[in-house]
Amino acid sequence: MRAMKWVRQASTKCETIRHSTASVIRSLRKLTPTAFMTLRRAVAKVEHLGIMGQKLRLNDRELEANKMIMAVKKEEISKGILDPTKFTPGQHIFKTLTEIRKSPIFNLIKRMPKGGVLHAHDTALCSTEYLISLTYRENLWICTMDEGCKAIAFRFSKEKPTHKPMEKCNWEPMAEFRDRRGEDNVTRYFKRRFSMYPFSKFISNNQAWAHFMGIFILLDGLLCHAPVWADYYYNALKEFSEDGVQYLELRSLLPPLYCIDGDMLTIRDTVAIYQSELERFKADHPNFIDSKLIYAPLRGVEPSVVEQYVKTAVELNKEFPNFMVGFDLVGQEELGRPLKDFVEPLLKMPEHINFYFHAGETNWFGSPIDENLVDAILLGTKRIGHGFALTKHPMMMRLAKLLDIAIEVCPVSNQVLQLGVDYRNHPAALLLAAHVPVVISSDDPSFWRCAPLSHDFYFAFLGIAPMKADLRFLKSLAINSIRYSALAGEEKRVGYVKWQKLWDKWIEDVVEQKCSS
Amino acid sequence: MRAMKWVRQASTKCETIRHSTASVIRSLRKLTPTAFMTLRRAVAKVEHLGIMGQKLRLNDRELEANKMIMAVKKEEISKGILDPTKFTPGQHIFKTLTEIRKSPIFNLIKRMPKGGVLHAHDTALCSTEYLISLTYRENLWICTMDEGCKAIAFRFSKEKPTHKPMEKCNWEPMAEFRDRRGEDNVTRYFKRRFSMYPFSKFISNNQAWAHFMGIFILLDGLLCHAPVWADYYYNALKEFSEDGVQYLELRSLLPPLYCIDGDMLTIRDTVAIYQSELERFKADHPNFIDSKLIYAPLRGVEPSVVEQYVKTAVELNKEFPNFMVGFDLVGQEELGRPLKDFVEPLLKMPEHINFYFHAGETNWFGSPIDENLVDAILLGTKRIGHGFALTKHPMMMRLAKLLDIAIEVCPVSNQVLQLGVDYRNHPAALLLAAHVPVVISSDDPSFWRCAPLSHDFYFAFLGIAPMKADLRFLKSLAINSIRYSALAGEEKRVGYVKWQKLWDKWIEDVVEQKCSS
Repeated sequence: MRAMKWVRQASTKCETIRHSTASVIRSLRKLTPTAFMTLRRAVAKVEHLGIMGQKLRLNDRELEANKMIMAVKKEEISKGILDPTKFTPGQHIFKTLTEIRKSPIFNLIKRMPKGGVLHAHDTALCSTEYLISLTYRENLWICTMDEGCKAIAFRFSKEKPTHKPMEKCNWEPMAEFRDRRGEDNVTRYFKRRFSMYPFSKFISNNQAWAHFMGIFILLDGLLCHAPVWADYYYNALKEFSEDGVQYLELRSLLPPLYCIDGDMLTIRDTVAIYQSELERFKADHPNFIDSKLIYAPLRGVEPSVVEQYVKTAVELNKEFPNFMVGFDLVGQEELGRPLKDFVEPLLKMPEHINFYFHAGETNWFGSPIDENLVDAILLGTKRIGHGFALTKHPMMMRLAKLLDIAIEVCPVSNQVLQLGVDYRNHPAALLLAAHVPVVISSDDPSFWRCAPLSHDFYFAFLGIAPMKADLRFLKSLAINSIRYSALAGEEKRVGYVKWQKLWDKWIEDVVEQKCSS
Repeated sequence: MRAMKWVRQASTKCETIRHSTASVIRSLRKLTPTAFMTLRRAVAKVEHLGIMGQKLRLNDRELEANKMIMAVKKEEISKGILDPTKFTPGQHIFKTLTEIRKSPIFNLIKRMPKGGVLHAHDTALCSTEYLISLTYRENLWICTMDEGCKAIAFRFSKEKPTHKPMEKCNWEPMAEFRDRRGEDNVTRYFKRRFSMYPFSKFISNNQAWAHFMGIFILLDGLLCHAPVWADYYYNALKEFSEDGVQYLELRSLLPPLYCIDGDMLTIRDTVAIYQSELERFKADHPNFIDSKLIYAPLRGVEPSVVEQYVKTAVELNKEFPNFMVGFDLVGQEELGRPLKDFVEPLLKMPEHINFYFHAGETNWFGSPIDENLVDAILLGTKRIGHGFALTKHPMMMRLAKLLDIAIEVCPVSNQVLQLGVDYRNHPAALLLAAHVPVVISSDDPSFWRCAPLSHDFYFAFLGIAPMKADLRFLKSLAINSIRYSALAGEEKRVGYVKWQKLWDKWIEDVVEQKCSS
């Protein structure tokens, strides 16, 4: 009966509210159509100004470029409305990859200076072609099972490796394996094994993750050889740079690397190799801004291990203070442990080493993983990796906005790892509309055979953002990627200058129609 | 260069903000782990109180029932986390329909008194079995083409109908058609033609809509015969009532009906038939609350036609003031016309006839259709049909909350009409979190072979709401369906009393474990 009483009270109260508000809103019907349309336009204007970047002022050349960009965008969207099966952001990237290369919008974005990539994992950066080229290196062995049908591991060694990763697998020289199976077959096979293809159907994100982790494991012996590690990073910087990326913040497990004789280096050496390759790359490419490192070991561990992680982070930061600058934990959130299990060791991290936590990369609303968002923010994270679930937490969303915590949105990754299919339903649209800072990143472009950043920008522009989002939107994404980076003080100023130089050049190219194919 | 200056200014300003806010948030790292966990729990508590219905007080029996409900819910979710391919809200309803019938949560919800259905179309209410039973009625003719392989239309007539809906189709008596093709074959064929099955794959929502409209067209001659129209409605009320629904607000095109001799009745007669069937049903079923009508003609017309619609609405409301109470426009929003084309005639609607507009049933962000949301709200709509896109418009979302405009969320419909697949990504989760009023409806349950309302409640409870949403959530969905209905004053009070009576009984049944299968 208490409930009954409540219902009555609520009902009465509700009626009162409805009565008063209804009288306000209904009175709009007394407007003349002209007055209504004026009000309507005012609302549209306010909504329009809410689109990210709309308050940016464009110069004359940018305005001209904008017209051309919006003309092609409009065409691509009109086609999609007529026949949504032709609209690539409504479909799985694995089905549309070839199609997208023909898109004028994609080709414009490809050449656009997009600033930096702030969310990417260090062994999932390079193109499949580059990975395959690595398998031609000398002294490479492959361990296979099922009569050589299934590759299990790689290893560089002068002699046949002694340790078997699995009981049933056998080592043979890579060159022999290639001869025996036929070069074309092997290339085709590796193309598949080094990526998430062809799984475009919705299965479940656990299955997708199992496959995903399998690629990391397979690549381990190929990439963790010291000289290859160095070359892979240099090549990644090159590929990113060619895709209009001038800055890269990479997350790394920082594995110890091995030498050709089997000797193991230390984690410190892993970082040192990165640092020296970076210097070499910057010397060769003066337009490139910089690269920095976030130490991001696996989350599926005991709290005591995280305590050790924190110590390692402190030591590395002491030796590489401008390069190794942040900390995160990685691995599928659902199967790892929630951040709150690690609060005690994490609170020991000195304040000058920033957190950049993965959080809320899930669609389980109200799960401990979903709640990682709360812990990440309360622990003072500078950015949030993915934050796919953030929009379900209005209070956390307000905090992110207030505390200027940028959300690292990785559209293609979310699709491939089965969080959603249609980019038009991606929750980042709501972050944009609510003015939560957003940067667009690519996570693991190697595994989905995507460009280092262009595909993610393409989907953000065409699929996630409102139709009217224009050059201002693209420009503010680029600016955000520098603003929310770990670049500090003078570094950031230099970053903006280097980006602006390429930006101005690109605007000229667009206006001169040099970018459309 | 102006842009460059802007970048510098923004950068400096941004640095200042980041510096001040960062010092607030980072200081959390100085907390002891115990203090952190206290803060963390406080945040969790606030988030928990944000779940719809959490402020409801349950009586002792309800608390007991809640424990049992949450135990089975937890089990179903745990299974899903272990193996997401087993989690029905992550998949398409057409693949899981049989599975769901076995779900203990579904069976609890099935018997739960769920209040009213506020969003449903009058020719898509009844079960497929009932539709098939109608095809056994006397004097029914079927028009088929492709050697009788494809049904085009139905018609009740003493003699062979003269008008052909398509050049190439031929009329024959239904009984002959059934004999010729074999009863089982015909039943199987109608089961498919009367529903959206088997299209569970993501195609595009245009294709889904084309198929969907095709069912309405096929059913036209079967249902628009005056006696069948009456029986169909009576049967719908019966099926809804058996599914725990005590109130039905139906949207209707109000087609003129035909008699066996081909004579046509008027729209006024269509409403009169409804009203008299309703009285008959209420006399037979004293627990049933009521049913009301929203006149909802097609939106793909000229503004002058809408002017006529408004006049018709006014006339009907004059004759049936407690039954025909509202107005809407229907048909695929993308292919129809936006509300703003009809502002002039719509503003002529007298204030006592409420608008209940479909709006934002789209994932095209920033399209004119998406913007129907703005017009619907500015025109003073009492509720919004679907509002799938509302979360992309924070200002409109705030207005909906402030003006107490309920969103009629139809989960299964949104999935079948291809707006999204995974219920865990349904935007209604965000409406719930932001305290925008929500009611759950079923739209066209006939076409997806779903229960009148139980499946939609099931997905709302298990897929859309946060994991911790419990009996309080379900109870407030039921209460909302009465609160936001077109029931007025004393009608509403009586409605609550009738619902509460069945609710108390159901709670007892749950506690006594009479509901679990």
